Amino acid sequence: MSSVRAVTVRDCAIGGAEVVVMAGPCAIESREQIFEAAEVVAASGARFLRGGAFKVRTSPTAFQGLGWDGWKLLREAADAHGMLTVSEILHEEQIDEARRFVDFAQIGSRNMQNIPLLKALGRSRMPVMLKRGFGCTIDEWVHAAEYILTEGNPDVVLCERGIRTFESATRFTLDVAAVPIAKKRLGLPVLVDPSHAAGNREWVECLALTGVACGGDGLLVETHPEPSKALSDGPQAVPLGDFPALMEKTRRVCHAVGRSMAGSRVAAAA
Amino acid sequence: MSSVRAVTVRDCAIGGAEVVVMAGPCAIESREQIFEAAEVVAASGARFLRGGAFKVRTSPTAFQGLGWDGWKLLREAADAHGMLTVSEILHEEQIDEARRFVDFAQIGSRNMQNIPLLKALGRSRMPVMLKRGFGCTIDEWVHAAEYILTEGNPDVVLCERGIRTFESATRFTLDVAAVPIAKKRLGLPVLVDPSHAAGNREWVECLALTGVACGGDGLLVETHPEPSKALSDGPQAVPLGDFPALMEKTRRVCHAVGRSMAGSRVAAAA
Amino acid sequence: MSSVRAVTVRDCAIGGAEVVVMAGPCAIESREQIFEAAEVVAASGARFLRGGAFKVRTSPTAFQGLGWDGWKLLREAADAHGMLTVSEILHEEQIDEARRFVDFAQIGSRNMQNIPLLKALGRSRMPVMLKRGFGCTIDEWVHAAEYILTEGNPDVVLCERGIRTFESATRFTLDVAAVPIAKKRLGLPVLVDPSHAAGNREWVECLALTGVACGGDGLLVETHPEPSKALSDGPQAVPLGDFPALMEKTRRVCHAVGRSMAGSRVAAAA
Amino acid sequence: MSSVRAVTVRDCAIGGAEVVVMAGPCAIESREQIFEAAEVVAASGARFLRGGAFKVRTSPTAFQGLGWDGWKLLREAADAHGMLTVSEILHEEQIDEARRFVDFAQIGSRNMQNIPLLKALGRSRMPVMLKRGFGCTIDEWVHAAEYILTEGNPDVVLCERGIRTFESATRFTLDVAAVPIAKKRLGLPVLVDPSHAAGNREWVECLALTGVACGGDGLLVETHPEPSKALSDGPQAVPLGDFPALMEKTRRVCHAVGRSMAGSRVAAAA
Repeated sequence: MSSVRAVTVRDCAIGGAEVVVMAGPCAIESREQIFEAAEVVAASGARFLRGGAFKVRTSPTAFQGLGWDGWKLLREAADAHGMLTVSEILHEEQIDEARRFVDFAQIGSRNMQNIPLLKALGRSRMPVMLKRGFGCTIDEWVHAAEYILTEGNPDVVLCERGIRTFESATRFTLDVAAVPIAKKRLGLPVLVDPSHAAGNREWVECLALTGVACGGDGLLVETHPEPSKALSDGPQAVPLGDFPALMEKTRRVCHAVGRSMAGSRVAAAA
Repeated sequence: MSSVRAVTVRDCAIGGAEVVVMAGPCAIESREQIFEAAEVVAASGARFLRGGAFKVRTSPTAFQGLGWDGWKLLREAADAHGMLTVSEILHEEQIDEARRFVDFAQIGSRNMQNIPLLKALGRSRMPVMLKRGFGCTIDEWVHAAEYILTEGNPDVVLCERGIRTFESATRFTLDVAAVPIAKKRLGLPVLVDPSHAAGNREWVECLALTGVACGGDGLLVETHPEPSKALSDGPQAVPLGDFPALMEKTRRVCHAVGRSMAGSRVAAAA
Repeated sequence: MSSVRAVTVRDCAIGGAEVVVMAGPCAIESREQIFEAAEVVAASGARFLRGGAFKVRTSPTAFQGLGWDGWKLLREAADAHGMLTVSEILHEEQIDEARRFVDFAQIGSRNMQNIPLLKALGRSRMPVMLKRGFGCTIDEWVHAAEYILTEGNPDVVLCERGIRTFESATRFTLDVAAVPIAKKRLGLPVLVDPSHAAGNREWVECLALTGVACGGDGLLVETHPEPSKALSDGPQAVPLGDFPALMEKTRRVCHAVGRSMAGSRVAAAA
Repeated sequence: MSSVRAVTVRDCAIGGAEVVVMAGPCAIESREQIFEAAEVVAASGARFLRGGAFKVRTSPTAFQGLGWDGWKLLREAADAHGMLTVSEILHEEQIDEARRFVDFAQIGSRNMQNIPLLKALGRSRMPVMLKRGFGCTIDEWVHAAEYILTEGNPDVVLCERGIRTFESATRFTLDVAAVPIAKKRLGLPVLVDPSHAAGNREWVECLALTGVACGGDGLLVETHPEPSKALSDGPQAVPLGDFPALMEKTRRVCHAVGRSMAGSRVAAAA
C-alpha cells in the first residue's frame, strides 16, 4: 500500500504506523452527553473527540447544533480526557475563533467544493480533514484538496465517507478502493467514516473493519449514550456501551495489516 | 402538468405561459465576447444574458473568472440589448454589491447545500435560481430551497442540470422527470440546463428540446462566439452561429406543449 | 439529429418520418383485457399492440404471465384491430413458435447481455427490439446489438427504458441523450419506453413527450383498463381512458420536431 | 456478524470457520496456463480452481473461451492438485454435461436475472454461486436466489463483485456492506470477488482484505502466469508470482476476524 506523508495534529501523527480513531456524537447536545461520550471513547483508545456544533442539515427545520456553546463543551470534554478535537467548520468567518476549540478542522461532504472555504482554510494553517463529496469523483476530491494545499497549508487529510449509488439498503456506499487510490494520488493520509456510509449502526462494524483493512489511516465513528434520543443521525450511532467491543475488533484488524492502534486504558489498567 | 406560482425578475415572469431562455457564455472573458454573445442571443429571443464572473472550477489552476470586472461587462452588454442578467453568486459577501449587476442570482450545483449562502440569499430578496446538486436527490433539492424560502424570500426558481450516473457518454444525465416532480413538490418554476448535462454541444439540442417537452419553464444555454477558444466548458458551448436555429426548433416544441417563447427579432424584422 | 436505416416490421417502417407507438398492458391477463386495450390504443393511433406472456419478474412468487395462451390472445386482439404485435421472448426455444404470434421480438432489459438469446435471435431473422440493460452503458448496449447483427439479422431496433441511478422518486432515470447517441453510434432506430422509467403513471406523459422531443423513433407505453387491478406494474400503467389524450399531446410534439404519427381513427371519423 | 447455513461443495464447506479461496485465470487459455495456475494457487491455500470456458464478453469480436475443451483442462488441472472447480455456466443445456467438469456452478453478473437459467440450476442440485448483477439491488439479488431455492436446490452461495457507480477510477465499486446484509437476509454464505470490482490489479489486494474483513465467506481471485498476455481481463489479473504474498496477507486478516484459511503447503513444507 502507498506510503504517505504523515500530518501531525498537535502531538498526534495521522498517516504513520498508528491507526487514529476519532469518535463521539454526531452533534453535541449537552454537557452530560459529550462528557459521557468522551470518557468512554478515550478509555477505548480514541485519540480525538468528534462532535458537531454547526450542523449542515438537509432540512431547515432539523436541529442545527448548539453553535459556539457546543464547541466550548467539546473542548472541555476533550481536555478532561487528554483528547484532541475534530469538528466541522461551516464558514470561513468561524476559523479564527474556532482554533480555540477545534484542533482538526473538518470540511463536510456538502462543502467539498465550497471554494471560498477551501481557500480560507488553506490560508489558516489549521490541519484540515476534507471529506469526500458524496457525489464527487476521486479526481474532484484530489483537486479540492489542491485548493487548500495551493494556499500554503500542507496539513490536509482526506476522509472517505461513502458515495451515492442506486443501492438504498445503506445510506451511502463506502468506496473502499478510493482509500489506496487517493493516498497514491495525493500522497496524504486518508481516513474512513463508517457511520455515514452505513446509515444504520448494524453495519458500522463491518465498515469500520474494512476501513482499516483497505489501508485507512484512521476512523471517524459516531457513538451516542442513547442513540434513540439523539437529535441527529441516531440510527447510525453505535451505543456507547458497544463501543469498546468495536474498538477491540478493530484493533485486531489493525495488527493484521501491520498497523497499531492506541490501547484501551481500561484493559491496560486491568 | 403542475401549475406553479410564477416568479418575476424585473419585468419577466418565470413560470407563466412563456418559456424563458437564458443564454450566453459559461465565463465572461472579454468585452467583445460578451457583447457579441448578447447581440445574437437577444436577437434570437433570449430574455436573460448569462455569464460567470466568479467560477467554481474543479481545479485551482483553471481559469477562475474576471470577477467584478466581468459583472460590469455583463451588465453593460445586457443593458445594450434590453436583457436581464443571471450569474452565479459564490459567497454571501458578494450579494449586496452584486445587485447592481445581477438580476437573478444563481446558486451553483456545488453550492446547493451551502447553508450560509442559502440563508443569506433568503434574507436578500434577490430572485434566486437554485441549481440541483449533481449528487443530490429531488428531496434534498426541495429542502435546500426551503432554506431560502424560510428566511422570507419567496422568489426561488429551481434548475435541473443533470445528475451523476454511471453513464459517461454525457457529462451528466439530465433527469427530465425531476422537472414535473419538483414543480409539484415545491409549487415553483423549474428551468433546465441542457449544456452541463450534455457536456458536448452535439447533444445540447436534444436536451434543450426535451427540457421544454418535460414542462421546463425556461432554458439556460451556454453559447460562445468561438467555442474552441473558450476558457471554460468550450466543448459544451453551442457556437453563436448555430444558436438561432436551436431557438427556432425550441420555439416549435414550446408551441406544441401550449407554451410560448419570446420571438426572434431578426425574424420579426424580416 | 442522426438519420438511421429504417427497420421494417411487416408493413410498418420504424425509423422513418413516422413516430411509431406501441401500447398495451404490461402483461396479458385475459381476453377481455387485451381486446379492450387493443381497441382503444388502435383507435388512438398505436400501430403495435404490446403485452407480455412470459414475464421476467424480480420475485418467483409474482405473476409470471399466461404463456402461450397469452400470445394467442395477443395475436387475436391485434388482428382484430389491424395491429402488429410486440412481446418479450425469454428463451431461444420460444423463437420458432413465437413467430406465429409475435411480429417484433423484444429482448428485455434483464436479458440485454444474454448472449445465447442474442445469437439465436441473430440467426432467426425476426425483427428484434433490444431494450437497454438498466445497469448498462450505451457502449455495452451497442455491443449487445452487434451480437445480433453479426449473426446476420439486420433488423435491430434499440429501446431506451431508463437507467438505475441514486434518484428514487422515479423507478429509473430516462437517459434521453442516449437516444441520439445510440442512433449515431449504431445507425439504427431507437424507441423510448416512458412507462418503466417513470414507474408511476403521473410522470409517463412527461417522459413520453421527451421521448419524442429527443428524437425517439417510437414509444412503448403501458396502459390498462383498470390499473389498480393489474397483475403487474399497475402503478405505471396509464388508464385506457387517459390514453387518447396522451396520444394527442404526443402527436403535437411529433409535428414540432418534423415527424408524423399515425392519426386517431376516432378523430378522423368524427 | 450473521451466522449462515454452510453450503458444502464435495468436501468443502463454504460459510463455516474457514474462508475459502477460489483462484485462477479469467479464461482458460491453454494446458500450460491452467496447470501452472493450479500449481501455484493450490500451494498458496486456494481450495477451488476457477477458470472460464464459456465467456460472456461485451463485444462479439472478443475471445469467447475454449468451450468444452477448456472445461476438460480445468478438471484435469484441478484434479492434479486436489482442488475443486468453479466455472460459469451460460446456458441450461450445459448443466448435465457440465457436472463432469464443474463442481460449483457460477451464474455470472449478466445472468443474475436469467430466469430460465436460474430455474434450471434450481432443478439440477448442483451447488450454485450467484454473482450479483452489477446494476442490481441487494433486494433483487436475494429474490434471484429465491428462484433457485424455490425449485428445490438449497445449495446457493452469493458473490458480491461490485456495482456500477459514477466512480470510474475502478471498474466497479465493491459494495462491502452488501456482504453482511445479504447474509442476514438470505441466511446463506456470501463470497467476494475483488478482481472484477477493482478492474486493475493494483487495487485487488485492498479489496481482497476488505472482502475478508467485512465478513465474506470466501474470495474469488483472478490470477494469471503472464497478465500482459491474457486473452481477457488481463489488467485485473494478479501475476501468479504475487499470489502467495496476497494469500499470506489475507490469511492474517482472516485470523483477525476469527476465521481460518487453508494453509500454504509451501510454507508448511518449509
